[in-house]
Amino acid sequence: MNFIDLRSDTVTNPTDKMREAMFKAEVGDDVYGDDPTMKALEEYAAKICDKEAALFVPSGTFGNQLALFTHCNRGNEVLLGEDCHILMHEVGASSVIAGVQLRTIKSHKGEMDSKEIELKIREENIHFPETGLICMENAHSNGRVLSLENMSKIYNIAKEHNIPVHLDGARLFNAAAYLNVESKEITKYCDSVMFCVSKGLCAPIGSLLVGNKDFINKARKKRKLMGGGLRQCGILAAAGIIALKDMTKRVKEDNENAKLLGKELSKIPGIKVNLEDIHINMVFFNIDETGYDKLKFVEELYKKGIKINAEEDGFIRFVTHYWISKKHILYIIESIKEILSK
Amino acid sequence: MNFIDLRSDTVTNPTDKMREAMFKAEVGDDVYGDDPTMKALEEYAAKICDKEAALFVPSGTFGNQLALFTHCNRGNEVLLGEDCHILMHEVGASSVIAGVQLRTIKSHKGEMDSKEIELKIREENIHFPETGLICMENAHSNGRVLSLENMSKIYNIAKEHNIPVHLDGARLFNAAAYLNVESKEITKYCDSVMFCVSKGLCAPIGSLLVGNKDFINKARKKRKLMGGGLRQCGILAAAGIIALKDMTKRVKEDNENAKLLGKELSKIPGIKVNLEDIHINMVFFNIDETGYDKLKFVEELYKKGIKINAEEDGFIRFVTHYWISKKHILYIIESIKEILSK
Amino acid sequence: MNFIDLRSDTVTNPTDKMREAMFKAEVGDDVYGDDPTMKALEEYAAKICDKEAALFVPSGTFGNQLALFTHCNRGNEVLLGEDCHILMHEVGASSVIAGVQLRTIKSHKGEMDSKEIELKIREENIHFPETGLICMENAHSNGRVLSLENMSKIYNIAKEHNIPVHLDGARLFNAAAYLNVESKEITKYCDSVMFCVSKGLCAPIGSLLVGNKDFINKARKKRKLMGGGLRQCGILAAAGIIALKDMTKRVKEDNENAKLLGKELSKIPGIKVNLEDIHINMVFFNIDETGYDKLKFVEELYKKGIKINAEEDGFIRFVTHYWISKKHILYIIESIKEILSK
Amino acid sequence: MNFIDLRSDTVTNPTDKMREAMFKAEVGDDVYGDDPTMKALEEYAAKICDKEAALFVPSGTFGNQLALFTHCNRGNEVLLGEDCHILMHEVGASSVIAGVQLRTIKSHKGEMDSKEIELKIREENIHFPETGLICMENAHSNGRVLSLENMSKIYNIAKEHNIPVHLDGARLFNAAAYLNVESKEITKYCDSVMFCVSKGLCAPIGSLLVGNKDFINKARKKRKLMGGGLRQCGILAAAGIIALKDMTKRVKEDNENAKLLGKELSKIPGIKVNLEDIHINMVFFNIDETGYDKLKFVEELYKKGIKINAEEDGFIRFVTHYWISKKHILYIIESIKEILSK
Repeated sequence: MNFIDLRSDTVTNPTDKMREAMFKAEVGDDVYGDDPTMKALEEYAAKICDKEAALFVPSGTFGNQLALFTHCNRGNEVLLGEDCHILMHEVGASSVIAGVQLRTIKSHKGEMDSKEIELKIREENIHFPETGLICMENAHSNGRVLSLENMSKIYNIAKEHNIPVHLDGARLFNAAAYLNVESKEITKYCDSVMFCVSKGLCAPIGSLLVGNKDFINKARKKRKLMGGGLRQCGILAAAGIIALKDMTKRVKEDNENAKLLGKELSKIPGIKVNLEDIHINMVFFNIDETGYDKLKFVEELYKKGIKINAEEDGFIRFVTHYWISKKHILYIIESIKEILSK
Repeated sequence: MNFIDLRSDTVTNPTDKMREAMFKAEVGDDVYGDDPTMKALEEYAAKICDKEAALFVPSGTFGNQLALFTHCNRGNEVLLGEDCHILMHEVGASSVIAGVQLRTIKSHKGEMDSKEIELKIREENIHFPETGLICMENAHSNGRVLSLENMSKIYNIAKEHNIPVHLDGARLFNAAAYLNVESKEITKYCDSVMFCVSKGLCAPIGSLLVGNKDFINKARKKRKLMGGGLRQCGILAAAGIIALKDMTKRVKEDNENAKLLGKELSKIPGIKVNLEDIHINMVFFNIDETGYDKLKFVEELYKKGIKINAEEDGFIRFVTHYWISKKHILYIIESIKEILSK
Repeated sequence: MNFIDLRSDTVTNPTDKMREAMFKAEVGDDVYGDDPTMKALEEYAAKICDKEAALFVPSGTFGNQLALFTHCNRGNEVLLGEDCHILMHEVGASSVIAGVQLRTIKSHKGEMDSKEIELKIREENIHFPETGLICMENAHSNGRVLSLENMSKIYNIAKEHNIPVHLDGARLFNAAAYLNVESKEITKYCDSVMFCVSKGLCAPIGSLLVGNKDFINKARKKRKLMGGGLRQCGILAAAGIIALKDMTKRVKEDNENAKLLGKELSKIPGIKVNLEDIHINMVFFNIDETGYDKLKFVEELYKKGIKINAEEDGFIRFVTHYWISKKHILYIIESIKEILSK
Repeated sequence: MNFIDLRSDTVTNPTDKMREAMFKAEVGDDVYGDDPTMKALEEYAAKICDKEAALFVPSGTFGNQLALFTHCNRGNEVLLGEDCHILMHEVGASSVIAGVQLRTIKSHKGEMDSKEIELKIREENIHFPETGLICMENAHSNGRVLSLENMSKIYNIAKEHNIPVHLDGARLFNAAAYLNVESKEITKYCDSVMFCVSKGLCAPIGSLLVGNKDFINKARKKRKLMGGGLRQCGILAAAGIIALKDMTKRVKEDNENAKLLGKELSKIPGIKVNLEDIHINMVFFNIDETGYDKLKFVEELYKKGIKINAEEDGFIRFVTHYWISKKHILYIIESIKEILSK
């Protein structure tokens, strides 16, 4: 049985074209700098972010943590949103690898107030750590996209204080699709960016960390320390190139499908969806008012061939992606109606 | 010239009685467990907190960081107030020594909402760090005292989730004086507490970390690792004993003096003081509406023999202590009036 | 031009059979535990080491450092050989990730004296860190294989003192081939082992960390923290399975080819090879007595289509592997003779 | 009963003159830079080492670890002797606080071979950590003094490679007395030095870290992070000044007393002392050939009013100091003869 998998866009299998590219990929030992396919991916990744250089890493968490480790000295303070992925979903890694102190900024649906950031930048004082980095996340893992205006304000304040800015862009291309701009229009408001070729772009493994040459050179050595020096990684790069060249063009469909899914869900009595918050491929909703048992909800959908995650923090999250079509969405809606009506 | 020093209660010189006790103190090598005066201090410190054991440390920061290092495994998450001393004024140490991730709770004038804490305690999930500790601060460095009710709620939630609680009680006895209770009525809502015998209690150096035997035994070894294994520290313990036996009885005077100082300040046109927030020996106020230049304010007071710190985050802070009498307060008020009238 | 690449066995490209298996691999999101091919690889890896469980990691360094991070508490001391890979070639990672103190044991051509180890295990003392782990390396990166007797002695001492043992088995199957035993005859003298499916086994990427269930469960979460949680990694697992099922059977050829290469090199006047030290697929030699310029030696071989690394610590290292045949070896020898004769 | 305490020179109580100086000490809040006595101590400490600046720390371990933390970036490698105090007796702190990798050099009775050091300095390579520091220890905790020639060779090699040198000089003045030079003749072969005013110099608490201004400024902030920012520490500084001005002149007596004690011990049948290794105030010997039970030996001496430590690594250590006179030594010898004769 082939499931409709709404748990995340991380579940996306590689496409046939990717499999073929991996099969044929020219490879070499990348620790020796000998992998031509990887070089091509890294160059292309840098180019579309309008930065000097890029580095492949095994995961989004790896890329974010490597960015913190490379930008900061140990004991520095990092300013970032109270609900961001780095704080919430990376297992506390920043206290282990980079060894930095996280200090959170209030999140207004993912956006931070640049004035609050400015107030929290540390002056020199024997009691204070140095502010070493500011992090933004766009698209945010709450499903919303930061405005370029918000990013620009924060970036400018950072630059006034000579503090680097890292962007967690795990779903950068979903954000670009929503904003209807090229990715480099977003990445111009950061010094480094991490984005994933897995997730919505369907490559099986990997993310890219992008920045200037000096930053990437340092990151390359620290990647080795963290155990991310890979060998014939051109295999993975081959899929990554297709992810960036082809798949980035179609993620707007996933955003639209999410919108559709949200709209249809909102018509079902007792289901609450905030349609304005559906910017990318994620729909958050709750079914409290239906009175339906939530564990049973998961189980019943599973029986109908639909995989979803359990509720977290009061919300169920559905994620659309390459393997979810409009037709699937209609089937999902029908299935939910049927379940709730029982 | 003898200054009236309002910068902090950390400036308190030891009293004559302390000097005499230090002079006569029976001492030994405390790393070998041979210092009788230190043993007496540690026993007394444990007793007044109604805990099993105590350990002398060179500073409040040392004690708080040792508590984090002893309670937590590396990579754990610690829940604590967004404006607490551990986050704000300890140089980012928790990312270096304990290697933990700080996650902040909204501060309602120093108090945290127990419901927010409960929501932020982590469940088991491969993306989540473990919640390793909850920290409170009483008296808070904002000058206010947490209610026992607030502490009790937080402590109970922690216990339900089997999470230890540490209390930063740098000014524990000022808090006890304000609440008009014995210190152990406060420390019953924590598993470990750090309090200072320096600061308002006038000992020249040192703080105590207090908890159960197992905790203190572990902390003793980690104190050695952190370079806090001292030798003939009975010299310092002698002053510490006087701090705990005598000086704790008189800190209510400092609280009262602060109240008086605040009240008199509030009468001066253009000076804003929130009198309700004066719980202990600290007065926060601002002089924005006087239009007087703030750097000049510091300088003019200095010329009159009064040392104060520069404004921080929009407030000037005056701290009362053993070496500030009522008479000094009247002189301070007169001096300010004179300065502002020019 | 197709180079004969003697720099390392890390340069090995995947075989056609591997490419085909990767092309066809059934995959899923392994962070959700949904990748059947990865599960099959991990089960097989555990089985051939006669352990309970296994975990895929992106590199040998990742696997070793994850083992240290999982076995040890921070601040523990790790005993290991003075010339081992973990100390020498992993960028100082153990001081960053696991946060442990390395203490070295004299290396007798890779073997440690079990008596020296016993002397260096720490007793309880307030000045001492706890001995948290003992590491062995077999095959050793010096090209030699530890005897089972040596391993057994060290393992027994560790067990007497209740200290875990980790084996860096990056080239475990070359060691097994040399000893003419199954891999599990080696891994019975350790609690955890890391071996690579890249290197001599030709998979493009990856290593396995193997141990008991409790250890692997803990390691799985710490792998996520280190950024090693991969998604559709069945692609890589498909190659890994062929590495383990097919390629392990043929590494004895690489060992034999190294022996042949060493023997032939030793016949060339001025080249010094210690033939007794050629246990696996590595030949260390020096050309000092030929008087030939060493940089030129590298360059001249390159012109003849042979890639080698520069001398390190007084030795040139040649490494044989799947893509180096007997015929290549004869060509290498002829080429060197020709170069030196000029 | 007043014990003769041979366990260590850390057991030395302060002298009457020190107690008086502490009683009268002018003090202030040193975190604000207001303690005149501490300033005087730090200036004097810098002067006698012919360096720019100095910083008081609570212990020798604190000073050594602060030096590592200040000189090194995290993940750096530190070269130091295999039997040095930093590795052996500081609870593994360098893996926690500085976060560095220790790599040991063979100890030839405390001296390291400068050629071995040169071989172990790392070149730039993606697999290698950077060599961040070289540490020497003089006097060595094995009781011997490094020759100035050995120190000079190592220092010169370090300077050629642009690597800083730290000296663990816990017993610097015992070494200076043995070499019959001023302390600055030793400290010219290092960039930073830590020495203790406790131990043989009898101050109750404290050590000094000495170096150039930039280094000490950085160390001052990191000292705060480590919890070593003290308040009215002029109390301790007052004793420290006497330690440096008076007590340094008399430690040669302790060295001589150790020599005498060693000589007399060596005359007792069955006691083995290597007289050539008695450079400072420490005598290492063993009583294996007397056949006397070692625990009983400790107990019997205790009954006679003599405290000693249990054997460690095959040796009993006696340490002489201010509170051990020639008369005590004769009593010790008589007591041992009497015990062994029973």
